[in-house]
Amino acid sequence: MISSKLFNSYANRGMALESDINLTNKYYLDNNIAIIHKKPTPIKVAKVSYPNTHSVVIKEAFYEMPSTTDYNGIYKGKYIDFDAKEVKSNKSFSLSNIHQHQIEHLKKVYEHGGISFLIVKFYINNTSYLLETKNILNFIENENRKSIPIEYFEKYGYKIKESYIPRIDYIKVIDKLYFSEVSYEKEI
Amino acid sequence: MISSKLFNSYANRGMALESDINLTNKYYLDNNIAIIHKKPTPIKVAKVSYPNTHSVVIKEAFYEMPSTTDYNGIYKGKYIDFDAKEVKSNKSFSLSNIHQHQIEHLKKVYEHGGISFLIVKFYINNTSYLLETKNILNFIENENRKSIPIEYFEKYGYKIKESYIPRIDYIKVIDKLYFSEVSYEKEI
Repeated sequence: MISSKLFNSYANRGMALESDINLTNKYYLDNNIAIIHKKPTPIKVAKVSYPNTHSVVIKEAFYEMPSTTDYNGIYKGKYIDFDAKEVKSNKSFSLSNIHQHQIEHLKKVYEHGGISFLIVKFYINNTSYLLETKNILNFIENENRKSIPIEYFEKYGYKIKESYIPRIDYIKVIDKLYFSEVSYEKEI
Repeated sequence: MISSKLFNSYANRGMALESDINLTNKYYLDNNIAIIHKKPTPIKVAKVSYPNTHSVVIKEAFYEMPSTTDYNGIYKGKYIDFDAKEVKSNKSFSLSNIHQHQIEHLKKVYEHGGISFLIVKFYINNTSYLLETKNILNFIENENRKSIPIEYFEKYGYKIKESYIPRIDYIKVIDKLYFSEVSYEKEI
């Protein structure tokens, strides 16, 4: 069971970004580009009722802490794993928005040869960045700060192009970073 | 919202096997062998209440149809995706136990270069088989039968060794099938 504060920061956080990513994943799926799904929110069911023989209704349940990230799947044979976060008004992304075990999960995926990262959308400049796990770990290991400034995303992250369809084309970044012969030039 | 019949066949089905697979996945995780998690059961929340400012309780919710399989993750850099089913007393696995869209999902993963399969445990001989997607599709495309007989699993599937730790060592089969130089001889 998690608190209402955590509920708000987890279950409700980043709804606009989440919606955009879900639409993007649907686009990838419909066009056979990648198979990436959002995991359901973990819920512990305490009581169910059977109003009739044909249906079941959950009458009491609690949100649980997710044990991994929200999104995973496959692109060009590679395992993809990430989480997505919004930063409403700050100029930095507070690490309190992501759990230690989620960082550990991203790290393990990275070590096992998967492609893992965070997508962080800053509203202050209306820009979404893809930050690879190695650069998240690099920040945590070398900085004392508890939040990653937007400048770090500018320097080590990759801007994700947003448009109508697909909304937030993060696979394009993955493509350039992991499946391109030529070195990736950041879009300014 | 799904019916109580589907609830029983989905949410409650295969609890012993599910428990064994969860323990196996924990073993793989603890020993840094593979990172494979069960996805949470999808639940649509209709009503929540806040008994106090620190907690949130779900007061009405409904089970939803899963859009993918139950398990996915990464092993030796490869994307792994599967579902697990138990056959309590029959000598064949009824295809009605798996949804068309789940078959489609396994097929897509296979086509995108991932490793996808079913684990089916038959109680009649207390044996768990790993059946690769290509062989599931092969059966569906070539047979008119609505259930896959145990003989098909004997012929095209791979027996999974069961022991105390890990409970159901399916990665060993994956290893032999996908990461071994020598051809795989089935254990009889």
